[in-house]
Amino acid sequence: MTSRTDSILALAEMLQSRDLRLVTAESCTGGGVATALTDVPGSSAWFECGFVTYSNAAKIRYLDVPVATLEQFGAVSEDTVRAMVRGAVNNSLGDIAVAISGIAGPDGGSLDKPVGTVWFAWGTDEAQITECCRFDGSRSDVREQAVTQAIQGLCHWLAS
Amino acid sequence: MTSRTDSILALAEMLQSRDLRLVTAESCTGGGVATALTDVPGSSAWFECGFVTYSNAAKIRYLDVPVATLEQFGAVSEDTVRAMVRGAVNNSLGDIAVAISGIAGPDGGSLDKPVGTVWFAWGTDEAQITECCRFDGSRSDVREQAVTQAIQGLCHWLAS
Repeated sequence: MTSRTDSILALAEMLQSRDLRLVTAESCTGGGVATALTDVPGSSAWFECGFVTYSNAAKIRYLDVPVATLEQFGAVSEDTVRAMVRGAVNNSLGDIAVAISGIAGPDGGSLDKPVGTVWFAWGTDEAQITECCRFDGSRSDVREQAVTQAIQGLCHWLAS
Repeated sequence: MTSRTDSILALAEMLQSRDLRLVTAESCTGGGVATALTDVPGSSAWFECGFVTYSNAAKIRYLDVPVATLEQFGAVSEDTVRAMVRGAVNNSLGDIAVAISGIAGPDGGSLDKPVGTVWFAWGTDEAQITECCRFDGSRSDVREQAVTQAIQGLCHWLAS
């Protein structure tokens, strides 16, 4: 299994060799992906900016997530993370984005979307790939696993 | 000395009792302040959103930092962090903001602004308090100390 740091170094190389700038759009991870990525020296060469859109209002305002999407599918949904990626790319100088929205807990879970449910999207304005994970553990555990998954998913997508 | 977690819990209580919503505007900490704050359950009650404005372009675009300010004083300056606070409050539904801009290293330092130099501002659209720190250690050390200082400074300002 690749460590998170190895993934970030691989990611940095792929982004720089393709001259791509990355944007993060985070809800439940609260900036954890941006923090991990920018802990690497030289990340300013490929990290454009990050949005921590915790509230629905912020998802609408900065990422153009449609109100109808939030109302119909909820903030933790495939449609929402796809819209977050599109908005992050469209509203920045970035080329690609990663979006994360989930329920870190301890509250906010439901039968349908229990605590630990996290939706991811990686992509461009035109196309995104998505994944839904269910992580175990505490709020911090869920967030940590989500950060790792967001970064490893980005590597897999770029390497594919 | 107060731990970072104690500071965040005290901060959460002050923000909630005054019905204030907080916005973060981070450069060198790369989202570390937002990540630390949102690790606390229930933070959605007082954390509005966060901007990780690593590039100058992002500082201008999302936080309305004047180009003239960046050109005259640089990204790591009192004038820039003041402008970041004003922009973060004006461009969000938040009431108060914290802004951080510094040189985490290992590159980017100068005689005038060595690695470890970090400017902070805390405040509203109308008024901000500022501080400049020089932290020792690695890139990660500088970033960690800056996150703690950003949070503790916010507590001191709100408690004063």
